[in-house]
Amino acid sequence: MPDAFNLDDFEAIARARMAPEHFDYVAGGAGEERSVAENRAAFGRYRLRPRMLVDVSSVELETIVLGTPIALPVAVAPMAMQALAHPDGELPIARAAAAEGALYCLSTVSSRSLEAVAEVSSGPRWFQLYVNNRPQARQLVERAAAAGYSAIVLTVDLPELGYRERDMRNGFELAGPWGNFPADEPEGLDHLLDMRGVALTWSDLVEIRSWSSLPLVLKGILTAEDAQLAVEHGADGIVVSNHGGRQLDAVVAPLDALGEVVAAVGGRAEVYLDGGIRRATDVLVALALGARAVFIGRPFFYALSLGEEGVARAFAIVRQELELAMALLGTPSLDRIGPEHVRRDARIGDDA
Amino acid sequence: MPDAFNLDDFEAIARARMAPEHFDYVAGGAGEERSVAENRAAFGRYRLRPRMLVDVSSVELETIVLGTPIALPVAVAPMAMQALAHPDGELPIARAAAAEGALYCLSTVSSRSLEAVAEVSSGPRWFQLYVNNRPQARQLVERAAAAGYSAIVLTVDLPELGYRERDMRNGFELAGPWGNFPADEPEGLDHLLDMRGVALTWSDLVEIRSWSSLPLVLKGILTAEDAQLAVEHGADGIVVSNHGGRQLDAVVAPLDALGEVVAAVGGRAEVYLDGGIRRATDVLVALALGARAVFIGRPFFYALSLGEEGVARAFAIVRQELELAMALLGTPSLDRIGPEHVRRDARIGDDA
Amino acid sequence: MPDAFNLDDFEAIARARMAPEHFDYVAGGAGEERSVAENRAAFGRYRLRPRMLVDVSSVELETIVLGTPIALPVAVAPMAMQALAHPDGELPIARAAAAEGALYCLSTVSSRSLEAVAEVSSGPRWFQLYVNNRPQARQLVERAAAAGYSAIVLTVDLPELGYRERDMRNGFELAGPWGNFPADEPEGLDHLLDMRGVALTWSDLVEIRSWSSLPLVLKGILTAEDAQLAVEHGADGIVVSNHGGRQLDAVVAPLDALGEVVAAVGGRAEVYLDGGIRRATDVLVALALGARAVFIGRPFFYALSLGEEGVARAFAIVRQELELAMALLGTPSLDRIGPEHVRRDARIGDDA
Amino acid sequence: MPDAFNLDDFEAIARARMAPEHFDYVAGGAGEERSVAENRAAFGRYRLRPRMLVDVSSVELETIVLGTPIALPVAVAPMAMQALAHPDGELPIARAAAAEGALYCLSTVSSRSLEAVAEVSSGPRWFQLYVNNRPQARQLVERAAAAGYSAIVLTVDLPELGYRERDMRNGFELAGPWGNFPADEPEGLDHLLDMRGVALTWSDLVEIRSWSSLPLVLKGILTAEDAQLAVEHGADGIVVSNHGGRQLDAVVAPLDALGEVVAAVGGRAEVYLDGGIRRATDVLVALALGARAVFIGRPFFYALSLGEEGVARAFAIVRQELELAMALLGTPSLDRIGPEHVRRDARIGDDA
Repeated sequence: MPDAFNLDDFEAIARARMAPEHFDYVAGGAGEERSVAENRAAFGRYRLRPRMLVDVSSVELETIVLGTPIALPVAVAPMAMQALAHPDGELPIARAAAAEGALYCLSTVSSRSLEAVAEVSSGPRWFQLYVNNRPQARQLVERAAAAGYSAIVLTVDLPELGYRERDMRNGFELAGPWGNFPADEPEGLDHLLDMRGVALTWSDLVEIRSWSSLPLVLKGILTAEDAQLAVEHGADGIVVSNHGGRQLDAVVAPLDALGEVVAAVGGRAEVYLDGGIRRATDVLVALALGARAVFIGRPFFYALSLGEEGVARAFAIVRQELELAMALLGTPSLDRIGPEHVRRDARIGDDA
Repeated sequence: MPDAFNLDDFEAIARARMAPEHFDYVAGGAGEERSVAENRAAFGRYRLRPRMLVDVSSVELETIVLGTPIALPVAVAPMAMQALAHPDGELPIARAAAAEGALYCLSTVSSRSLEAVAEVSSGPRWFQLYVNNRPQARQLVERAAAAGYSAIVLTVDLPELGYRERDMRNGFELAGPWGNFPADEPEGLDHLLDMRGVALTWSDLVEIRSWSSLPLVLKGILTAEDAQLAVEHGADGIVVSNHGGRQLDAVVAPLDALGEVVAAVGGRAEVYLDGGIRRATDVLVALALGARAVFIGRPFFYALSLGEEGVARAFAIVRQELELAMALLGTPSLDRIGPEHVRRDARIGDDA
Repeated sequence: MPDAFNLDDFEAIARARMAPEHFDYVAGGAGEERSVAENRAAFGRYRLRPRMLVDVSSVELETIVLGTPIALPVAVAPMAMQALAHPDGELPIARAAAAEGALYCLSTVSSRSLEAVAEVSSGPRWFQLYVNNRPQARQLVERAAAAGYSAIVLTVDLPELGYRERDMRNGFELAGPWGNFPADEPEGLDHLLDMRGVALTWSDLVEIRSWSSLPLVLKGILTAEDAQLAVEHGADGIVVSNHGGRQLDAVVAPLDALGEVVAAVGGRAEVYLDGGIRRATDVLVALALGARAVFIGRPFFYALSLGEEGVARAFAIVRQELELAMALLGTPSLDRIGPEHVRRDARIGDDA
Repeated sequence: MPDAFNLDDFEAIARARMAPEHFDYVAGGAGEERSVAENRAAFGRYRLRPRMLVDVSSVELETIVLGTPIALPVAVAPMAMQALAHPDGELPIARAAAAEGALYCLSTVSSRSLEAVAEVSSGPRWFQLYVNNRPQARQLVERAAAAGYSAIVLTVDLPELGYRERDMRNGFELAGPWGNFPADEPEGLDHLLDMRGVALTWSDLVEIRSWSSLPLVLKGILTAEDAQLAVEHGADGIVVSNHGGRQLDAVVAPLDALGEVVAAVGGRAEVYLDGGIRRATDVLVALALGARAVFIGRPFFYALSLGEEGVARAFAIVRQELELAMALLGTPSLDRIGPEHVRRDARIGDDA
């Protein structure tokens, strides 16, 4: 196995192992990919303020999200059709996450079925939901509840697929078979995710919540206004995310939106961040600004090209980096991390 | 036809198809071309704030400018002598715009006559006016009114041609024959546009308005002061523009000037933006900051090198990008877009 | 003669024509050359706000500095030993400046004597003074007054030569013979400009003024505090300058210091700017911020490598650019230019 | 000996002379090496404000730190195992520093023993302390006091070694023999510096102070809060430092933290800066912002690859640059340098 010392290392590994159009599907974003770049660049505008002479002889990474204990505050973001990177689809990441005690969030448009994933994973699992068809969506939720998924993550930023030029240039469209859908379902992702006709709005959340007793998380919120609406409509959690820069380009980076969302929520729901995290120091910045946990996507997809062993290596790096970073920040447990540990002011310039 | 997936793609296509000195004439700007670069870079300083769970099952691009309904808020900017890119001159763009229902603005110094353009286009058309000679200008306005142009766009930022170094280095001067002028008119653009002697000032606007009953738009305003004067002197519309960076270099980018112009106008005239727009997300930023519609220039000129089919492709891209972007922004019609959809603050750094 | 279309073009020309160590002496600065780069970059942080529909049928470039009429607000900065670029030393630039009606400022450490320069130039001339030896300096002032120089420009930012690494690496030290000193004077510039022993302070200005009836200009001021002292000690003019980035590296750019100097002076002396000007638009920014005129150095030195004809071409470019830029800014005379013509705020990012 | 004209020149020299994995150990930092880069970049956000016509005929570099007179305000930072660059380990730098009258700070994990260093150096010396084992640490302090070291510099930012990827990629771990430890001590630096178990906290400072009568300096403070605690716990000095970017990546640069530390200390302890200094102008910025002296690390390590002669050359450059820079800043002695000599505001952009 080629060695990796940080999450970025898996990108080059995957580029060499995956079909170019599959790699591009994963790596690419919408439009000029300004948001893809910005998601990462936003972290460059913050600096950590480490505290010294704190007893860090023992560092604890555990936390709880919506009642589910997780071993570390870094979860696997939902990502479509992981068979692009490995013939076993979602199973290797799910297994590695469970071994780590990490939260795994399964996509509606997975290669393997949610039941197949549940079968190999005793770890914490959430189910990401696209509502492209209400009865079908209800069934998915009911199946997820039955299979032991402990929350529903409704993606709200995809009424339709973004303008993804890499895929257009490659003539590539993600197609099934899809693990969660009947074999006779048309295969095109475009079809599966053409949800504008469904016209989902805030008032639909009552119905969606009624489909199960699971907590409901909204993924894709980028404004205080929507955060306020989410809370008013009973959301239990919010993932601040711009879908990895894959939906509308030129939107605000999740990290830049985190502050206003946390303020608007005012503790009435849990807030998570998704987008641009590559380093333990990024995790700490997000937590300091109010995120309860973060999601990481592409790096796990890339690591999957090495199979479960690759994903395990990715988790080992995350854990090693994070435990060390918490020791060096002077915060031996996650609840010790606060806004006083970051700095963003006019005297700190943007990275070149 | 070489394929294009965004407006920028047409630049490389045109570079390969046009004579180098013609391409340079179109692509180039004044001085160091700081303003050319800034016009585009200004958009990099804004971020969109998309709203979720809005019903976008139907997205409407239609709007009305000075009483003329147009199918989308993206118009073709006036550009001199389109014969540089195609032997049919202005006709292919005019035809493609009409097919799209888009506004086409014809330049005074076009290759084809305003009547010839009117003949092939049943779509909305405006006529851009240079006043290099008052009686001649009056005749142009009268002819434009007779030929069904529905507004006069007076360019105010060109008392004399800018300092265009690419043309100097290429030894290139745009020359006729000019579609709108008699065949015995001297051909040099320098001559045609040496308007300092005409000494046009605000008090001339009364006379220019009297030449027809058409609404009058001033193109080339970059300050609140001039916007205020424009309104006081009866302008119906203002195009915030720096002439694509082709006149005075190092001036403010139109997008950076838009806010003060909109504030100064206070709804007493329509405000449009011209300069640097390449993406639907740029259109949305401009509309959010108060523009009623935007003009795009060079990309259509480049697409013209592929003939009407190329221009049609450019319009298709604009429409596809824009409809999708509006759905993803959560704004199913143009009147839903407002300042709350953009963000520009110190916590968002400039793009690298 | 190789053609040039802007002042930057002369740099490449000179690089090809001058001995490398001579070119480096002229082009180089102190330390890391941060200030050399900043002097130019500072202009990139301002934007012009052009006004439209102003009568610019006639544009006037004339102004008056300390009672001397000059044909344009762009003067030749004092520069040592112009024989590095041309065997006739200072004479070609002096002649070309006179032909243009432009102010020429002669350096104490010139290749030719101040009298020789006066002989070939009927144009406005100032004399730059280094006080490395008081009696010798007094003689220089008396000779300058006798030869028709109309002001004394005392350089205050060179108690000792800056840390110039290009010269160190090249093993190069500027050496005479010096036009203004007796032939038996030791030739090293280091020796000539070792002025720390002279210990010039503010109280010396009374004596220096007494050496002639000419107005006294201080060159090298970068702070409001020193500007205030300059005025209190009777300076008639101030050149805001960091010696082209050749003395202390990492200092404030002259353009960034101009505002505080102009405010501190409060009209009690004339203020000029030196450093980083390459374009007419730069001249306009400096004038808008309160400079009465600007000095340009290196580009004229580079043009000198082509002889008087090259310098004449440089002046022609300056004049052509400036007249056009004033027309396009809507300012037909210099006294029409004010702070309302520039913009520098947080909504305008720095150039990339 | 290859020539060097500034401290950066020694980096290329050392790269050519040292084993690649040794060079990487010295040059590298933690994580993405953002902090390594930021430490230097922070200086690019300040500009000096030089004052003119000050008597600088004599410039004095001397100062006093914690009662010890030093010949210049630039000290040698503590750095592990200098045998990586030279077979004589710490001796050449210690000798060169003594010859210069400069302060040399010896690392706990040096190649040579503190007694061996004391034997060759009559100059000012401080001893840097790691407390990986309390009795052993106490012995080190007692030996340092006995050997004439005049202060103890306790490093507080290393409960454990940072995440150093260059070393991981090179498979390199610094190993002994260690000059200050018995020969039977396990050799791995990882072992020697695994200090999390020691769990040093603020309350330990009383005991550490009791081990000798020497003043105690805390190295690695980056926040006002810790500076306040340091003073409350009796620290005599504080080194604002992020360990050269080698511990926690993405932390604030020392220069960016200096202001808040100086304000929090309020004169109750001396404050020094360590990190990113390469130029005399950097020294002046740090002193202007309140540092009493600065530490320089890597450049001396690199110069050591040329032996004592190389280090002497480095000191000569520092002295020559600094004396000249003080003359040009108009500050003939260190106590004349104050906040009025620097500028950092929104009108000065960041360096590109």
